[in-house]
Amino acid sequence: MTTKPPSPWDQASIRSTESRKQENTGRRQQAAPRFSEERPAARHEGGNRQELRYYGLNAVQAVFAQRPDAIRKVYLVESRIPQLQPLLSWCVKNRIGYRVVEEADLGKLAASSHHEGVVADVLRVEPQGLSAWLQSLPAGPALAIWLDGVGNPHNFGAILRSAAHFGVGAILQPQDSTLAVSGAAARVAEGGAEKVPLVRLPDRDSALAALREAGFKLAATVVRGGQDVFATALPQRLVYVLGAEGEGMDESLAAACDLRLSIPGTGAVESLNVAAATAVFLAQWRK
Amino acid sequence: MTTKPPSPWDQASIRSTESRKQENTGRRQQAAPRFSEERPAARHEGGNRQELRYYGLNAVQAVFAQRPDAIRKVYLVESRIPQLQPLLSWCVKNRIGYRVVEEADLGKLAASSHHEGVVADVLRVEPQGLSAWLQSLPAGPALAIWLDGVGNPHNFGAILRSAAHFGVGAILQPQDSTLAVSGAAARVAEGGAEKVPLVRLPDRDSALAALREAGFKLAATVVRGGQDVFATALPQRLVYVLGAEGEGMDESLAAACDLRLSIPGTGAVESLNVAAATAVFLAQWRK
Repeated sequence: MTTKPPSPWDQASIRSTESRKQENTGRRQQAAPRFSEERPAARHEGGNRQELRYYGLNAVQAVFAQRPDAIRKVYLVESRIPQLQPLLSWCVKNRIGYRVVEEADLGKLAASSHHEGVVADVLRVEPQGLSAWLQSLPAGPALAIWLDGVGNPHNFGAILRSAAHFGVGAILQPQDSTLAVSGAAARVAEGGAEKVPLVRLPDRDSALAALREAGFKLAATVVRGGQDVFATALPQRLVYVLGAEGEGMDESLAAACDLRLSIPGTGAVESLNVAAATAVFLAQWRK
Repeated sequence: MTTKPPSPWDQASIRSTESRKQENTGRRQQAAPRFSEERPAARHEGGNRQELRYYGLNAVQAVFAQRPDAIRKVYLVESRIPQLQPLLSWCVKNRIGYRVVEEADLGKLAASSHHEGVVADVLRVEPQGLSAWLQSLPAGPALAIWLDGVGNPHNFGAILRSAAHFGVGAILQPQDSTLAVSGAAARVAEGGAEKVPLVRLPDRDSALAALREAGFKLAATVVRGGQDVFATALPQRLVYVLGAEGEGMDESLAAACDLRLSIPGTGAVESLNVAAATAVFLAQWRK
C-alpha cells in the first residue's frame, strides 16, 4: 500500500485543523502516517473480530444511514470525496479516521475488485434473540426467512437484498449456524444487510414452538414435490425455510414444517438458484 | 500442471487399446504426453476462438446431453470417472481426448475453483437469426428476454438458469452486444445455457417490427415508475427487456416498448438484483 499526500479535501475543505487535532488525539492517527503504522489490512485481519470490512458504495452508505456510530474507519479514492462528503464530515465531527488512498490500495483492503471506491471498517451487529424479535414485531402480516444452510456469501447477499426489497422482517439463523454477514455479502446486498435484522434461533423445537405461538406457519421450500406456490393461499405470517445450495432442505426440518412449497418449472434445469427462488417466493407472498 | 500416470480407468476399463490408438491418430495425443505439448490452458487461450472452456458438472453434462459433437476435450479428476462414464465412453468411441488430472490442474484449466471436478473444451453455439427463431416457434404463448446490457457473467448465468426453468424461448441480443456465454456463465447456469437459444437481433427498429409482427408485446423492466407487474395482465407473447446492472434500461428503448413494468417493493434497497428481478418477472408470466 502506498501512502498519498493529503489531498486539499482531506486537509482543508473537510477537516478543520482543530478537528484533525482531535482526531489525532482520539484515534492515534498521524498527519502523515508511515506505512508500517497504517497497514490496515494486516491490522484488521489480526485484530478486532467485532469489526467487519465493508465495501461497495451502497453497503457503506447504508451503514452510515442506519448506524453511523458503528463506523470505525473509512478508506476511499479521491473521486468519491464529493459523493461521500456527509460521511466524511461526520467522521471529522466524531473523530473517526478516514484516508484517501489509491484504487489499488482499496482493492487490497477489500480483498476484492468490487469496492466501488470505498471501504469501511464497521462494528458487527450481534443477532437478536428470537423472543426479543417476536416481541418487537407489530401485529399483522409478517414474513421471515429461516436460512437452514445457505453458505455462499453471494447467495446470502442476494437474499438479503431481495429480503429488504420485499419487506422481510428477519433472517432467522439456526443456533449452530456459522453464517454471518461478510464484506462480500454486504456488498452484494447493496444496503440490504442493514435493513433486515438477523435473529439467532434457540434449538429447533423451541424455535418452531415460539414461531407458531406467534402465529407463524413454516413453509419448507423444496425443489420438487411441494405444493405449487403459485396455486397456494399463503399464510399471513409465514416463515420460508431455505435449505443449503446443492443439498437442499434437511428432511427432518422439512417434515417439521406446516407446508411444503415448490416453484414449478420445465425441468430443463434441476432447480432455480437459491437466491432466485427466494426472490420468487418472497414476491409471491408480498403481492 | 502435473501429469498423472494413467489410471486403470483411463487405460483399460474405458479405452480399449484400439480406440486409444485411433484417438492418438485422430487427436495427436500421446499416451504419456509431456507437459510442454499438453498445456491445455495455454493452447486454449492462444487457440481456437470457436471453443469455450466449460466447467461444472451440470454445465458439462448438459452439453453432453444436448450436443455431444461439440465436445472437443475433457479433463476430469479421478473421483468423477464413475459419474461421467457415459461421457468418457462416448469420447472413446468418437476419438475425443480426455485426461484424468489433479484437482489443482482443473483449477488452472478452468481459472476457477468452481470446476466441480470436470472441465471441457466445447464448440461455441452461434446465435440464431431472429427470423429463423420466429419461424421455428410453435403457435401460442411464448416468452423471451431481450438483454440490453447485462454484463456480469454471474448475472447472465443466473438469468439463463431461471430462463431454462421457466421455459423462456430465447435470449435476444442486440446487434452490437458483446455478451456471450462464458465458462463462468455456463457454470452458474447449471445446464441452462444449453436449453435456451441465443438469438442475434437485427437493428432495433427491424427487431421491434419483426417481434410485433409475430404477435409479441415488449415490456421494458424498470426499477420504478412502471406498472405493478403483479397487477398487470401480461400478454401471451411477451418479451421482457432487461437493462444493464447499475444503469438500468436505455430510455429510448424503454420508450419504444409497449409496456413498462416494475416489481414494487419497500424502497429499503434501490432495486432488486437483475437476476432476482428476472426470476420474479418470469415467474409472474409463467404461472
